[in-house]
Amino acid sequence: MRIALGIEYQGTHYFGWQRQVSGPTVQSVIEAAITKVANHSVSTYCAGRTDSGVHAFEQVVHFDTFAKRSMDSWLLGINSYLPSDICVRWVVEVSGDFHARFSALKRHYQYVIANTHIQPGLFCQHATWCYRPLDIQLMQEAAQYLIGEHDFSSYRALRCQAHSPVRTIYQLYVEQHNQYVAINVSANGFLHHMVRNIAGVLMAVGAARHKPVWAKHILEARDRTQGGMTADAKGLYFIGVDYSSEFLLPQHKRHFFLK
Amino acid sequence: MRIALGIEYQGTHYFGWQRQVSGPTVQSVIEAAITKVANHSVSTYCAGRTDSGVHAFEQVVHFDTFAKRSMDSWLLGINSYLPSDICVRWVVEVSGDFHARFSALKRHYQYVIANTHIQPGLFCQHATWCYRPLDIQLMQEAAQYLIGEHDFSSYRALRCQAHSPVRTIYQLYVEQHNQYVAINVSANGFLHHMVRNIAGVLMAVGAARHKPVWAKHILEARDRTQGGMTADAKGLYFIGVDYSSEFLLPQHKRHFFLK
Repeated sequence: MRIALGIEYQGTHYFGWQRQVSGPTVQSVIEAAITKVANHSVSTYCAGRTDSGVHAFEQVVHFDTFAKRSMDSWLLGINSYLPSDICVRWVVEVSGDFHARFSALKRHYQYVIANTHIQPGLFCQHATWCYRPLDIQLMQEAAQYLIGEHDFSSYRALRCQAHSPVRTIYQLYVEQHNQYVAINVSANGFLHHMVRNIAGVLMAVGAARHKPVWAKHILEARDRTQGGMTADAKGLYFIGVDYSSEFLLPQHKRHFFLK
Repeated sequence: MRIALGIEYQGTHYFGWQRQVSGPTVQSVIEAAITKVANHSVSTYCAGRTDSGVHAFEQVVHFDTFAKRSMDSWLLGINSYLPSDICVRWVVEVSGDFHARFSALKRHYQYVIANTHIQPGLFCQHATWCYRPLDIQLMQEAAQYLIGEHDFSSYRALRCQAHSPVRTIYQLYVEQHNQYVAINVSANGFLHHMVRNIAGVLMAVGAARHKPVWAKHILEARDRTQGGMTADAKGLYFIGVDYSSEFLLPQHKRHFFLK
């Protein structure tokens, strides 16, 4: 039986999503909790591996099990073994051809910036700080160059291991709400550090350190060394994933830091 | 010379505002930082002592000094000695008759509730969790009974040491935004635990466990033992303080978790 989960977490205290030897990761904590409920060892597959410090309102994960439990038993059981900064929001049985990573059609991220004169004490692990006043219009203008199907070589980490650097951005827009600025982006998939590299470029444009067309020049260079700063992980939120409706995943309102 | 500060902090890792022997407090950390910049020992006075776990977007504090520094030197100097979860947002010289506590005309608080089926992993230290769906209209109705000048004996902590239990609530309203519900309250002053006790009653009413008029019955009992639960500290935010304009404190937009 294949089971899918929606998982929310604060990434601050974890070495990212992926299981590793150097310290606690969200995956290792989740798998330990599922294993206790399943009573057998479990491996999970996720929709998008997040870096250390990155948060998620809805990471999607699947695993296979022969344990027989009601969906409520999985939900309550797994949550009872999780620390307070990770929770399972929903559990559902899916068909054997569902795969959290390969079935994903769109991924949604939000990047949050506290745009204040002084580095904030509140939400210091939940938003990146930028003291230069950001011009949303300029950021919005730069964002237009990135929408569509492009070779994002200049926007991916040097150590990114994806076979192709081509991705399609469906939506990329900037909004402001009180002291916060958010960059919202949806794509078929993201390269390593792609959202944080886009955020770094849009912040530099918003701070008037570069013209909006700089985003296009970087894109066309297809060379990471021509790119901008990688924005800090702590401002990044994995918002959710779209799958085909045939998989019958739960439909509900997405959660954001800023909306 | 008397100096006033606006201070923002995440209360999670502190034993409240007030200096004490049992562990780190916001006051002790702030005074240590100011003392380093002033080069002499400094005592601070605040507008409202917050409990352990309570956050502040703008706590107001004053201290006296004979050190001569520019306002920017105070601001940058003090911030350079503060941990990442506390910051000074502004520094201004004030007249000798200004007192952060006794000159305050109004205090503003916001109480934030995550109203979700599952206890959230994100912002787990920044909002109280309530799994029962909250009816905002019922909460709003209950809130009306508390507005105005009343004896709030039923809404103060048993160990509250204020001479009079009479306070005036100028504004008390409830708003909802996505998964969050916020209770906003402004008064001339607050008794110990008053906001959290009001939040406890409004949450019970919103969850339909009591009728709105229960808030009035509790008020009229003038007896803490008749009151509701004290809501968790982590949902509470000190938003700001109003002073007479004669003190020339900086005017700027208030920050909220939810607005």
